[in-house]
Amino acid sequence: MEEFLSKAKRSAAELVRLQSGQKKRILHQMANLIEDNMKEILEANALDMEQAEINNLSPALKDRLYLDEKRILAMARSVHEIAELKEPVGRVLDGWVLDNGLRVEKVSIPIGVIGIIYESRPNVTSDAAALCFKSGNVAILKGGKESMHSNEAIAKILQEVLAANGLPKEVISLLPDYSREGVAKLIKMDRYVDLIIPRGGEALIRYVSENATVPVVKHDKGLCHTYIDKDADFDKAIKIAVNAKVQRPGVCNAMETLLVDYAIKDEILLPLYEAFKPYMTTLKGCVLTREVIDVEEATEEDYDTEYLENILSIKVVDGVEGAIEHIRRYGSGHSETIVTENYTTAEKFMNEIDAACVYVNASTRFTDGGVFGFGAEVGISTNKLHARGPMGINDLTTYKYKIYGEGQIRE
Amino acid sequence: MEEFLSKAKRSAAELVRLQSGQKKRILHQMANLIEDNMKEILEANALDMEQAEINNLSPALKDRLYLDEKRILAMARSVHEIAELKEPVGRVLDGWVLDNGLRVEKVSIPIGVIGIIYESRPNVTSDAAALCFKSGNVAILKGGKESMHSNEAIAKILQEVLAANGLPKEVISLLPDYSREGVAKLIKMDRYVDLIIPRGGEALIRYVSENATVPVVKHDKGLCHTYIDKDADFDKAIKIAVNAKVQRPGVCNAMETLLVDYAIKDEILLPLYEAFKPYMTTLKGCVLTREVIDVEEATEEDYDTEYLENILSIKVVDGVEGAIEHIRRYGSGHSETIVTENYTTAEKFMNEIDAACVYVNASTRFTDGGVFGFGAEVGISTNKLHARGPMGINDLTTYKYKIYGEGQIRE
Repeated sequence: MEEFLSKAKRSAAELVRLQSGQKKRILHQMANLIEDNMKEILEANALDMEQAEINNLSPALKDRLYLDEKRILAMARSVHEIAELKEPVGRVLDGWVLDNGLRVEKVSIPIGVIGIIYESRPNVTSDAAALCFKSGNVAILKGGKESMHSNEAIAKILQEVLAANGLPKEVISLLPDYSREGVAKLIKMDRYVDLIIPRGGEALIRYVSENATVPVVKHDKGLCHTYIDKDADFDKAIKIAVNAKVQRPGVCNAMETLLVDYAIKDEILLPLYEAFKPYMTTLKGCVLTREVIDVEEATEEDYDTEYLENILSIKVVDGVEGAIEHIRRYGSGHSETIVTENYTTAEKFMNEIDAACVYVNASTRFTDGGVFGFGAEVGISTNKLHARGPMGINDLTTYKYKIYGEGQIRE
Repeated sequence: MEEFLSKAKRSAAELVRLQSGQKKRILHQMANLIEDNMKEILEANALDMEQAEINNLSPALKDRLYLDEKRILAMARSVHEIAELKEPVGRVLDGWVLDNGLRVEKVSIPIGVIGIIYESRPNVTSDAAALCFKSGNVAILKGGKESMHSNEAIAKILQEVLAANGLPKEVISLLPDYSREGVAKLIKMDRYVDLIIPRGGEALIRYVSENATVPVVKHDKGLCHTYIDKDADFDKAIKIAVNAKVQRPGVCNAMETLLVDYAIKDEILLPLYEAFKPYMTTLKGCVLTREVIDVEEATEEDYDTEYLENILSIKVVDGVEGAIEHIRRYGSGHSETIVTENYTTAEKFMNEIDAACVYVNASTRFTDGGVFGFGAEVGISTNKLHARGPMGINDLTTYKYKIYGEGQIRE
């Protein structure tokens, strides 16, 4: 593996020399070749699906694995879109002149070699490859074993385009080792790899974070809260709470726990109960909640659980202070929202909650690179360093200082 | 230790509530109290110096450990200066409005809890504490055992000021465990600690990087190069090379290897040899260098060594391509400079060299937070992520998105 990664690192130098227009052209070629090779991709995917049948994978997993014409066209379209994103490299982030006349420029540059570890979906292969290529990074892709044939077919197409443009195939490659040990080695190769982005289940992400010597930007859980304050507009509050829970319960920016101000529990809990009824949401509640509405009991464990399902815990808290305290204890630092018309309460919540995204009077469901206008989304980071919250393609860059002199020496 | 760190994390919430003016006032109080307690600090330092004598520490180490009135006044002055830095928290880094009317603001916030691991110098205690406090971060300081009494005396003063202002002492504290195991535990406490900054020898930094689960921003070695191109102004080239090496050889931004373009070796090597003579620099060179000037032989190991001494390796390379190749192989990504009057050659070097700071026609000695105008310097990062190159106080912040709505839900 070391030889493979060393080649990958060396190939980064060739990427740096590509002009923006060239990168764009090559990406469009990749997207076109994906469309042209529809048949080959479908055949490879059929092999994976066959194996999935033999291994008795769950229907959900099989659905993630499965490709058809429509899904392949969507893959190609996504690569076309990434091609057209604004050039992320070479942005002048800052610049100034020193007393001695030295001119300093802080300029965005590629990070270098990025390892992306993901699970079944084959479309991640082309998406991640295109995002890395557009931002001038070498991509080392480690997909799931169950999507091996599909990933190899897609990578082969991308590498064909690289070759046709005189670029080494190491610029986009699949990790040649599908075993668990492959990941274990990769995440320790800080000599060659600059960043690891794990996408997948909590166990994978925890394993990578705990064992990597390469820096990791991770997306793990989103345990998001909605707090309804005593000064809330009840109409807004109910709409926001329902939307945050039911519009798509299986995603990280959906609400898991609803916090209700003690002062209004008797007025708002019943209308909330009625509002959730048509969506058949399973409601759970604390003792105080259950004095007002008839729901299951919510335990400590519930407050600590990212359901990713149509289940909601409700807790009555002592005003905004109580809400902040609860979120500090159970929140995952992803997205939190307060519903209130009170300026001072809103400001307090916005300033004191430590999360990637803090909302007032809006659903947490808006935490999304697409919604934020970043174009293609790399993911949603729950890191505090490097990138936090929705990650766009600019977050696949770092920077360097360029300093222009006329012979200056230090006295 | 877990209880101690859990208290530290909780105290972060109190820091967030402090206004900029309060933080400034408290820092000035700390600086004043350091001056007022000169006697106590000197007494504590005398105990450390006594122990240093018993343990037979090297003169260099003893010098780093030693405090006198002048050094304590400098410590206090540094804290006064940090107090007056521009407020790093709450800067609006970006902001825009979405189609649906949501107003997004990207705002700088403290990172949270920062662990700083350092060696003998006691002034790092007050400096690091002040930088963390100014940027709203809780500081967990782990100094060297040899400066234990001095560090404790300084920390006690800072904590007295915290108490007088109604703040918990956990906001600035020394790690209660001086053992090697103390560090081992601290760097795994990602539940409570958000960032580790190790300052010290290569062994310490390597150990921390390899074992931490907390993110690490490290300053390790600076193996900096100066490349003299065939189109260089020889006068500038010689001045820059001499300055980069001899002005202060013991620091990370000093040059270790001089690269000379093959095309001019016969013209420039002799004047370079003469220019270094008055500084008694030990010169080493490759075979081609030694054909022109009489110097020791430079080995592979020399090119890979950060001397931090008045020693210089010289290597003749094949133009700018050769220089870039050599730097790619041996450089530490810190600071690199090219001397040339040729526009295209300069641009090539500036774009293709991957280092925190890339210079044209200037000495690498300028890589410094103070010189760059950042005020107090946190250090020089050799990370690629989060902060790269000279780190100012703004690099002790992260960001969050604040999103202001009027009841928006996701359709």
